[in-house]
Amino acid sequence: MGRFNLEHVYESQQFDLELLDIIFNVADEMKKDLSAGQRHYSQALKDKIMASLFYEPSTRTRFSFESAMARLGGSILTTENAKEFSSAAKGETLYDSTRVMCGYADLIVMRHNEPGSAKRASEASSVPVINAGDGSGQHPTQALLDLYTIKDCFPTVDGLSIAMVGDLKYGRTVRSLSYLLTKYDNITIYFVSPSVCRMDDDLKDYLTTNNVEWQEEGSLEKVLPLVDCVYMTRIQKERFNDLEDYQRASGKYILGLDQVKLMKEKSIIMHPLPRVDEISREVDEDPRAKYFEQAENGIYIRMALLFLLLGND
Amino acid sequence: MGRFNLEHVYESQQFDLELLDIIFNVADEMKKDLSAGQRHYSQALKDKIMASLFYEPSTRTRFSFESAMARLGGSILTTENAKEFSSAAKGETLYDSTRVMCGYADLIVMRHNEPGSAKRASEASSVPVINAGDGSGQHPTQALLDLYTIKDCFPTVDGLSIAMVGDLKYGRTVRSLSYLLTKYDNITIYFVSPSVCRMDDDLKDYLTTNNVEWQEEGSLEKVLPLVDCVYMTRIQKERFNDLEDYQRASGKYILGLDQVKLMKEKSIIMHPLPRVDEISREVDEDPRAKYFEQAENGIYIRMALLFLLLGND
Amino acid sequence: MGRFNLEHVYESQQFDLELLDIIFNVADEMKKDLSAGQRHYSQALKDKIMASLFYEPSTRTRFSFESAMARLGGSILTTENAKEFSSAAKGETLYDSTRVMCGYADLIVMRHNEPGSAKRASEASSVPVINAGDGSGQHPTQALLDLYTIKDCFPTVDGLSIAMVGDLKYGRTVRSLSYLLTKYDNITIYFVSPSVCRMDDDLKDYLTTNNVEWQEEGSLEKVLPLVDCVYMTRIQKERFNDLEDYQRASGKYILGLDQVKLMKEKSIIMHPLPRVDEISREVDEDPRAKYFEQAENGIYIRMALLFLLLGND
Repeated sequence: MGRFNLEHVYESQQFDLELLDIIFNVADEMKKDLSAGQRHYSQALKDKIMASLFYEPSTRTRFSFESAMARLGGSILTTENAKEFSSAAKGETLYDSTRVMCGYADLIVMRHNEPGSAKRASEASSVPVINAGDGSGQHPTQALLDLYTIKDCFPTVDGLSIAMVGDLKYGRTVRSLSYLLTKYDNITIYFVSPSVCRMDDDLKDYLTTNNVEWQEEGSLEKVLPLVDCVYMTRIQKERFNDLEDYQRASGKYILGLDQVKLMKEKSIIMHPLPRVDEISREVDEDPRAKYFEQAENGIYIRMALLFLLLGND
Repeated sequence: MGRFNLEHVYESQQFDLELLDIIFNVADEMKKDLSAGQRHYSQALKDKIMASLFYEPSTRTRFSFESAMARLGGSILTTENAKEFSSAAKGETLYDSTRVMCGYADLIVMRHNEPGSAKRASEASSVPVINAGDGSGQHPTQALLDLYTIKDCFPTVDGLSIAMVGDLKYGRTVRSLSYLLTKYDNITIYFVSPSVCRMDDDLKDYLTTNNVEWQEEGSLEKVLPLVDCVYMTRIQKERFNDLEDYQRASGKYILGLDQVKLMKEKSIIMHPLPRVDEISREVDEDPRAKYFEQAENGIYIRMALLFLLLGND
Repeated sequence: MGRFNLEHVYESQQFDLELLDIIFNVADEMKKDLSAGQRHYSQALKDKIMASLFYEPSTRTRFSFESAMARLGGSILTTENAKEFSSAAKGETLYDSTRVMCGYADLIVMRHNEPGSAKRASEASSVPVINAGDGSGQHPTQALLDLYTIKDCFPTVDGLSIAMVGDLKYGRTVRSLSYLLTKYDNITIYFVSPSVCRMDDDLKDYLTTNNVEWQEEGSLEKVLPLVDCVYMTRIQKERFNDLEDYQRASGKYILGLDQVKLMKEKSIIMHPLPRVDEISREVDEDPRAKYFEQAENGIYIRMALLFLLLGND
């Protein structure tokens, strides 16, 4: 095993192929361990404390980290909504909050509404900081679990074609995943979205520079037969000025049984969740539907990161 | 010991006498264990995770479950108010939330505002779900601890007379307890309430069908000398259109020292708490007052359920 | 070691020199233990449960207590905002809430908006209650950690001169610390504040009666060269009727690099945090700045209290 040399996790660009391999190998080990009768890692972080510092609520992500920590025997300090920390009335800086927190915990998981906040916190912290989503910025552990799910379903990531569907402009998960995909060879990405929420140019330029082929496509049906993976995301009503525009647009990007029939037999369907109606409930029974497995993979990835950042001494 | 064959706990009707005996025996064992110097069960659920998924806050009930889990050595993921899960903005279904959660925890305790939600969640879940109150629906663990308290105070439940006082229309605890009482012989229930919050007919019919004698009575004083147990509940102002009506009604259903004097020497006073002024503070010192013991019994009952659902392998 | 005979911790006046010594000695031991490879106290409270009952949010104080409990191996029940407990709608008394809670936990940490509430709760409780701040009342564990920090920086507390700066009328930390300082000899306190938030007469009288010299001073610069410790606090805008008055006043009580130059070489700078702009960020690098250490000392003091109240049998 190579060396895991990260101190903090704040953005997808921190990872190279070697680091990804280390994390995915440990995640595999964690997955195996959880299904074992006699677990090896159940007390691996027994004397460690993780603080969940959530400036905005996200039960799903918070529980995923806290479950990972509990599975490793560690303790948890938790906030559902640390808003009074950032309140105008008290007005403490993120720097001060972080410096205090790192005296209370061995690792900080931070969700914040401002892009870049996790990185700023990591600069003030004497303990590892993991970004659990910073506004429209990044959500690197989501990208890792997404990639881990893809890796798990195919012999190799090299050569895969992936459709990213829905809100590509504001959805930070597709952005974070795209960064990671540049580490692999011969990737093709199809961006499928209404015109109001197209992927931004900076990312498309980044892909081009890094030898990832991409193209934009308005029709979901046209793309489905071509790809190995469909990554669906939710289109938010708030992006549209006009309700009718929204209904027309979102109606075009729904994956029902008829659409799934167009897909390759060995392809997979992903979604970062929560879904509203982008994927019909009947699709859940199709073996290609991997979104609940994908959510579960979050546990293994986060166990791996916690272990690598804290337990590896 | 018989076989505990429940996978989930969502309503009182799931329990028959045999199951009740199993649960109460384990609760007795847990109670004894907690007062022992060298505890047997302090690590019984060491590698298990319980998720408290509270869509509306209830510190009392949540802490009771979490204390039970901690007393068995298990880990806890907790939400005080998971409202963003059910928010209109995100709009995820209970089905999806549950399917994700059951990848994070070994058991889910759910409080929800919609009747029937716990049962629906249990259908989506691969891990046990316990209903911790679903709106005007049920609160089965409260009924279990109520019955356990009664059983603890009398040689047998058969033959007891019980007055249920206060808001019988909207109070889910009296309803859930009534279902359980049908499992015993020669029970008599007196429903004592203002006319606007009388017990509904469906439950009275159910009692009749199941050989429980019941009668309605407007006067608390008349009933007090007759019963072995007075189960008080709070009358909520919101049920009345007219404030004066409310004050007249609620004033009639207060248990003070004068009322307690009318009760049998061996009778008991119960209340699911919180109380406002239905029971005067002076009554707390009377040996018949059992409501704080009743709250404490919640720990033993919930330890028993957690152990039976999780640890019994 | 003397005998620790407190059952609850609700106000600074409970402590005499002997108790302070016991607590500080155990805090020292905890500090040493936390930096040891093989910890002695990591499971000291393994089978104990602490309930954090916060009627108003305070992430910093809550995490400090919870971290202390986790470092001793204990379990935690937590509320970020137990407002529904005290809600008008439900209207339960603090007496009832406490009686129920002490059936769920082995120790209660309570934050409440009403002065005197922690003491009232302790009277209803069969388990130890620690006051984590009761409105404009007291915050005794903050006073302990403040004094512990001072003690740590000087050979003896006797003979020290301390400036308390900022909002002395509403700031409960300066008040609680002042009570503790009366236990030592030859203390001098300088109260430095705008006229609208001067220290109240009752405390000044208390100091006089207890042989602590004090004087009031409007100018921070004048006091800085004289003292061993500057205890800064935040001046709240809300105290002023006029915004200009506020800006003029608060501007006079800011500690920047120029002010720090006036201080003795061996003096220290403290702040209960959060700060807004009372201390410039550049001051953080000065070796005299002790406020982040002070926050960290909260862990050792709270570990000591939890251990003494719970583990010492």
